[in-house]
Formats: sequence, structure tokens, C-alpha cells
Amino acid sequence: MDNQQLLECIDACLACVDACERCAAACLDEPDIAMMRECIRLDRDCADVCAVTARLLMRDSALHAAACALCADACAACAAECGKHDHDHCQACAAACRRCESACRALAA
Amino acid sequence: MDNQQLLECIDACLACVDACERCAAACLDEPDIAMMRECIRLDRDCADVCAVTARLLMRDSALHAAACALCADACAACAAECGKHDHDHCQACAAACRRCESACRALAA
Amino acid sequence: MDNQQLLECIDACLACVDACERCAAACLDEPDIAMMRECIRLDRDCADVCAVTARLLMRDSALHAAACALCADACAACAAECGKHDHDHCQACAAACRRCESACRALAA
Amino acid sequence: MDNQQLLECIDACLACVDACERCAAACLDEPDIAMMRECIRLDRDCADVCAVTARLLMRDSALHAAACALCADACAACAAECGKHDHDHCQACAAACRRCESACRALAA
Repeated sequence: MDNQQLLECIDACLACVDACERCAAACLDEPDIAMMRECIRLDRDCADVCAVTARLLMRDSALHAAACALCADACAACAAECGKHDHDHCQACAAACRRCESACRALAA
Repeated sequence: MDNQQLLECIDACLACVDACERCAAACLDEPDIAMMRECIRLDRDCADVCAVTARLLMRDSALHAAACALCADACAACAAECGKHDHDHCQACAAACRRCESACRALAA
Repeated sequence: MDNQQLLECIDACLACVDACERCAAACLDEPDIAMMRECIRLDRDCADVCAVTARLLMRDSALHAAACALCADACAACAAECGKHDHDHCQACAAACRRCESACRALAA
Repeated sequence: MDNQQLLECIDACLACVDACERCAAACLDEPDIAMMRECIRLDRDCADVCAVTARLLMRDSALHAAACALCADACAACAAECGKHDHDHCQACAAACRRCESACRALAA
């Protein structure tokens, strides 16, 4: 693992936690909340997995590659759902998830 | 996934978080702390991964099988290291890790 | 802090994480999800605060009393909201929150 | 709470998680690990409290002020201990903790 990839992946994970938290909170305020159930569910899972992955990367854990593989899957699922919705917070979350998925796949390899 | 397996796995994950936290804290107090470096590192990783896995299981997340696979690996590594040390907290932690590994492998399959 | 109180508080925190996770997940499936917005929000906050409080207690952290004070407030808010709803998961969550609030207040003092 | 303060506090919390994780990992590698016991303990507590505080702030939780008060105390304790050690990672951690303490006190008020 090169150091530049590591720093990019930590940054992408933290940005994804932030985007998922904001998206979940905003979805809970939407008038069409009934349409946002799956988005809220996946935001929560993705935020939790990105948060623990970031911390394992910061401490250079031996588990980092396996955690990145899980995190990439969490991000891919969340990006696919968020990408279906036009709300700005969903589109921003989908973009953050795709960036994080890509950074995690590079380290999971 | 049958419900009994799910409940056992949540319980095993929470018991493993507890054993890892106690083991890490006790290792930090040991006179031979220089021997316990790897044990402390793996206790921390294992506690963090078990904690997030338990929460994904509680909420019946679609990621549960992949998280259980990661968690089983974290537990196996921690059990192998803790098992090398005679301290009671290390032996108790190794036992909790092995139980959690087994419960997670059953759900990861 | 006596050891019996400590063990009760850890157990109450973990039971509250479980009840909050189940309540949030079930609220997200309810037909009347628009009524459950605040319940989902408070379940999430309460689960996160109880989870970190449990871990600080397990490791006998110097922050435990201050964390218990925060946790008691999180539980009180979640119990008040959940208590307004007749769903079984809300009533179970309110009971777990009240038990955890009480255990945390005893250690926060 | 003004938005600029909120963004600064989230950023300071995440930077503090990173500094604490790196400091704890580096302390576990130090030849003088026996001198670093309290530093590792406080790094862990501070990282965990900063991480949950950041997430409560991202979702604009009603608990944010109380969480910031706890977080400021965690950061102050960690900064005081890290500041005693000349290792670069300890000095970097002390600086990150002081910045986070200051940002949290502003929101706790």
C-alpha cells in the first residue's frame, strides 16, 4: 500500500461518513420520507462501515484490506440507491460513495 | 439466517467487545507491557469490528454476511495472539474471540 | 463506583443499543413512517451514545462519569419519544432506555 | 450555532480522531512503551469520543452541545498527557486535541 493511496482512502472514508450522515438526516426531513426508507437504511450502514474502516486505516491495521473490501461493497450499495433520487443530498452522497468505493477497491486488491 | 443463530451471533459479538476491551485495558497495566504490544493492537481492532458487526446484525443489514466474514477474521487473529499469553484476561479474551469467530462463520456462509 | 453497578450499567447500555437499533429498523418499515421521524432520529443518537459509553465503562475510562451523564440524557430523550408510540418495538425501546438512564445516572453522580 | 463553527468543529473532531489513532499506534511501537501507557489510554478514549461527537454534529443532533462538552474534556485530558512527551506523534496529537477542545467548547457553550 503506498502512502498517497492510504491518505486518499482515509479522506474518502471520512467524506463518505459525512455525506451519509447528512443524507440520512435530510431524508428524515423529506415530505416524501416513505420513498426514502432504503436510502436511510443504506446511509446508516455505509456511515458505520466507512467510520470503522477509516480508523483501521489510520492505525495501519492488518485488517485494512478486508475492511476496505467490505467498505467498497457498502459504498456501492449506497451509491446505487442514492443515485435514484434527485434530492441534492442524495446526489452528493452518491458521489461521495463512488469516490470512497474506488479508493477502497484500490486498497482491497 | 435463522433467528437463533442471529441472536447467538449478536451475543457473541458483544461478549467479544467486552473481553477485548478488558484485555486491552489490563495489558496496558501489565509489568511486561513490551510483550503485549500485538495483543493490545489486535484487541482494539477486534473490539471495533465486533462492535460494528453487532449493530449491523441488530438492524438486519444486507451487509451482515460480509461483515461477519471480516469479524471472523478479526476474531481469529486476536484469539491466536491472546492464546499465547498466560494472563487470565488474555485467556478469557481468546475464548470469547473463538466463540465469536464460530458464530460469525456460521452467518458468513 | 462499585463493581455491581458497573456491570449493570454496561449490560443496560448494550441492551439499549440493541433496543434502539431494532426500533429504528422497525420504524423504517412502518406504514406510518412519517409519524416516526423523531423516533428514528433519537434511536440513532441513543444507540451511538450508549455504544461508546459501554466501551468506556468496559475499559474503566476516567471519562466514565461524564459519558454516563451524556448517555442518561440521550436515553431520557429517546424514552420520552418512544413512549408516545404504541408499536411494540417503541415500547420495548422506551423500557430499555429508562433502565439505561437509571443505571447511567447512578454512575454519573 | 453558526454554520462556520459547526464545520470547523466537525473538521477538528475528525483531525483529532486521526491524530489520536496515529499516536496510539506509534506509542505501541515505541521502545519506551512503559512510559506511554497513559498516552495510549487517553488516545483511545479521545478518538472514540471525538468520532461519535463528529457524527452527532454531522446529523445536527439535539445532543450536540452536551457531546461537545464531553469531547472537550476528553481532548483536554489527552492534550495534557501527550504534551509531556517529545515524540513527534505525541506533539502532533496534543496540537490536534487543543484545536478540537477549543472548537468543542465554542459549541458546548
